[in-house]
Amino acid sequence: MTYDFAQIDGIINARSLAIVGASNAPMKFGSLFTRSQVSMGFEGDLYLVNPNEQEIMGRQAYPDIPSLPGPVDLVYLTIPAHRSMQVLRDCAGRGVKGVIVMASGFREIGPEGKALEEEALALAREGGFRLIGPNCFGIYNPRNGLTLLPGHDFSREVGGTAFISQSGGFSAHVARLGRSLGMDFSAVVSYGNAADLDEGELLEYFADDPQTRLISGYLEGVKDGAAFRDALSRAAAVKPVVLWKVGQAESSRRAVLSHTGSLAGSGEVWDALMNQCGVVSVSGVEELCDVILAFEHLGRTSGRLLVSGGGGGLGTYGADLAEAAGLEVPALSAGSMARLQEILNRAGAVAGNPLDIGAPLIPMEIFESAMMEAGRDPATEVLVFDLAVNFGYDLAGEDGVREAARILARVKDETGKNVVAVLYSRSSDAGNLYFEGLIRELGQGLREAGIAVYPSMARAITALAKLTEIGVRHDSSHP
Amino acid sequence: MTYDFAQIDGIINARSLAIVGASNAPMKFGSLFTRSQVSMGFEGDLYLVNPNEQEIMGRQAYPDIPSLPGPVDLVYLTIPAHRSMQVLRDCAGRGVKGVIVMASGFREIGPEGKALEEEALALAREGGFRLIGPNCFGIYNPRNGLTLLPGHDFSREVGGTAFISQSGGFSAHVARLGRSLGMDFSAVVSYGNAADLDEGELLEYFADDPQTRLISGYLEGVKDGAAFRDALSRAAAVKPVVLWKVGQAESSRRAVLSHTGSLAGSGEVWDALMNQCGVVSVSGVEELCDVILAFEHLGRTSGRLLVSGGGGGLGTYGADLAEAAGLEVPALSAGSMARLQEILNRAGAVAGNPLDIGAPLIPMEIFESAMMEAGRDPATEVLVFDLAVNFGYDLAGEDGVREAARILARVKDETGKNVVAVLYSRSSDAGNLYFEGLIRELGQGLREAGIAVYPSMARAITALAKLTEIGVRHDSSHP
Repeated sequence: MTYDFAQIDGIINARSLAIVGASNAPMKFGSLFTRSQVSMGFEGDLYLVNPNEQEIMGRQAYPDIPSLPGPVDLVYLTIPAHRSMQVLRDCAGRGVKGVIVMASGFREIGPEGKALEEEALALAREGGFRLIGPNCFGIYNPRNGLTLLPGHDFSREVGGTAFISQSGGFSAHVARLGRSLGMDFSAVVSYGNAADLDEGELLEYFADDPQTRLISGYLEGVKDGAAFRDALSRAAAVKPVVLWKVGQAESSRRAVLSHTGSLAGSGEVWDALMNQCGVVSVSGVEELCDVILAFEHLGRTSGRLLVSGGGGGLGTYGADLAEAAGLEVPALSAGSMARLQEILNRAGAVAGNPLDIGAPLIPMEIFESAMMEAGRDPATEVLVFDLAVNFGYDLAGEDGVREAARILARVKDETGKNVVAVLYSRSSDAGNLYFEGLIRELGQGLREAGIAVYPSMARAITALAKLTEIGVRHDSSHP
Repeated sequence: MTYDFAQIDGIINARSLAIVGASNAPMKFGSLFTRSQVSMGFEGDLYLVNPNEQEIMGRQAYPDIPSLPGPVDLVYLTIPAHRSMQVLRDCAGRGVKGVIVMASGFREIGPEGKALEEEALALAREGGFRLIGPNCFGIYNPRNGLTLLPGHDFSREVGGTAFISQSGGFSAHVARLGRSLGMDFSAVVSYGNAADLDEGELLEYFADDPQTRLISGYLEGVKDGAAFRDALSRAAAVKPVVLWKVGQAESSRRAVLSHTGSLAGSGEVWDALMNQCGVVSVSGVEELCDVILAFEHLGRTSGRLLVSGGGGGLGTYGADLAEAAGLEVPALSAGSMARLQEILNRAGAVAGNPLDIGAPLIPMEIFESAMMEAGRDPATEVLVFDLAVNFGYDLAGEDGVREAARILARVKDETGKNVVAVLYSRSSDAGNLYFEGLIRELGQGLREAGIAVYPSMARAITALAKLTEIGVRHDSSHP
């Protein structure tokens, strides 16, 4: 279909919603989605539809679409495939902008399902609304509270990252990680089989959406390669695009076909396309989220790092990873070196880049002076510090560790350089959650201070390498 | 020096120990190491030496080595470099087998330190004992309780993995992870500058040590390339060797020189050497531990996986990663496919490999039958299942999630196939540690059932790929 911003925007920023198949029964998707939606507080009119219920989660239940007291922008179907057709018919002529069909059992199961999918598409065309899915979850939009994903722990903070996903599971996974990791979304859209609204139109929409600054996506395959290439190329020219493409291997191509009925395409063609459009390619949910976090927390970077920690191993390892990933770990100026040598005049500390402060925690005034000096060096663009919390705790207790985190925040403030903290607990005993609680608290404080936090040096370095790729292409689009 | 098993064994399995520089003062290494050692319960005679103290942690303090009431196998120096020489002199002629010099300030700082290191080595030769370090932590050996690493949360479980490390920090890090991740060590040795006892002799020792089944190491560089090559080649012919080599990049080579005074050598030469000897190469502490865990929990594998989870995305992603890593995700037999189709006759589930059970948790009898069927297929060698705990919890509560974990253990028991669980919490809110507690408990139970547990699909797949490399070379040495 011809891309129409206003219609897609009317779906994603819907002001009224009907959930057909809403349910009180646990272990049913109908109840999961309803619970998410009710608890996240959709800001428009919400109608729950189920002919077998009078009341669902304390709200009135309606028997069908024609019984609704007002018009609806968006209709969500969490009912089996064969029962969806009647509801699609009911939606015609009522001003509905879009219908999300969650059920599987369409094109991905073979000819019979394909016929059903074609019927659904024809009904959407006749009814004048767009079809999202089938075989998907739905939309999460913190702007209006639309939360058609399973779960209860989504954030209502509005951010600048859009995530589109052919997989429902990963759409929910990534959206849920938002609240705990501090990724803020403009919207997350799970679009499944893409019978009608597809990845190309979604790319165009988020390229035009003023709230979105970064477009990310999980893709299995596309149906119309040429249309997709055009949309991707247009979107990537306007905003950074980060894509996680699966289906390169033979077995996963089999899976893609049976999952969303898509053709995965050859790995070489995809690599060439992404390269050509300047799309940043990631593999896996961790890499995807790590890049988003880097983009949200750090300014543009050309990838010159100062890597530091207590003990020679940490910095050596970090420098190794950084250079292998194409980043720079430049030598410091003679002036900085001399001042650092004076500041860090203690056993085990080694001035330089990587910078070994000698032990995970050292007297705080020395630590602060050294970090300030390292941050001020003109060669330093991003300061990466491994906090080694458990070990620092043994040396200086909880107060020491907390103060070290505050010092990193002050270094960022005073030097104006980006700071990345590597933060993990070395203790994962089932019986003792103390360190886990402590690092989560420290992580939250660091993120609030604009410091990106990663659970390992490897993940920090990979995120910075990908962020540098974004910076190379979009050197003016970043705040 | 000529490799002498008995002397090194006398050090690692020391029956008496003196800690020189033992201290009550917090924020000092002298107190950290003493506390580790006292709390871990060294089984031999332990003497604490400090001329300024009468009593340390409730034990008598001795002023110096000559005042000790009995002979000592091992002397640990946690005092500054320049004060170490007198103690080395004091050790001569007392039957001491080895002295660990923890202090930095030797070869790694330049000519002055190099002279001091040469003096220490000469004193060791004259005194008839081996020098370990300088610029290191020390030895952790759960067999005799020797714990010359900082920290309090080490395990006393004896296992089959040796870890040798040029970095003190990483020796403590990896050893501490042992208890919480369930890695059991034969010993961990931090050897720093390797002025005397070096990586080559340690490789030979652990190749001969009957308790050790896998030798792992963190290396920055070696001084005598030819001797090291011989030792590595001999060790790797006898037991699997897993090495993490840093110092490939220019900046990390600078760091290696100032950290342990070693020459890192070129990356190409190292790669060729490791290849030639059949050494498994890893990069990073996570990869290292993940391979050790795979080796400890799984039998030998030739890398044929059944990848499964609830939702098409999980399996597709896992299969993609697996094939990219050189593993196989083979199609199932026609018989298994037919039976799985019948068992999983529900919306969203897709029989095959990857195997999509349709939702993270489904009725338990269906889940168990499907996993048993998939495990029994002759093509399946390792069954990898992503538990997606938070989502499963939303569907079936804590009881459901616990039962799913028990089912995986039964599948391993009944099919005799290896099972790997991917287990993570999608919630990392600072204020809510419930899921973290739950996954740690589940993880512990799974590990006790012989199931390797990884926090992400990517880490599980990488570990299995590395384990397959070990299997190819050491196809008879594994239990």
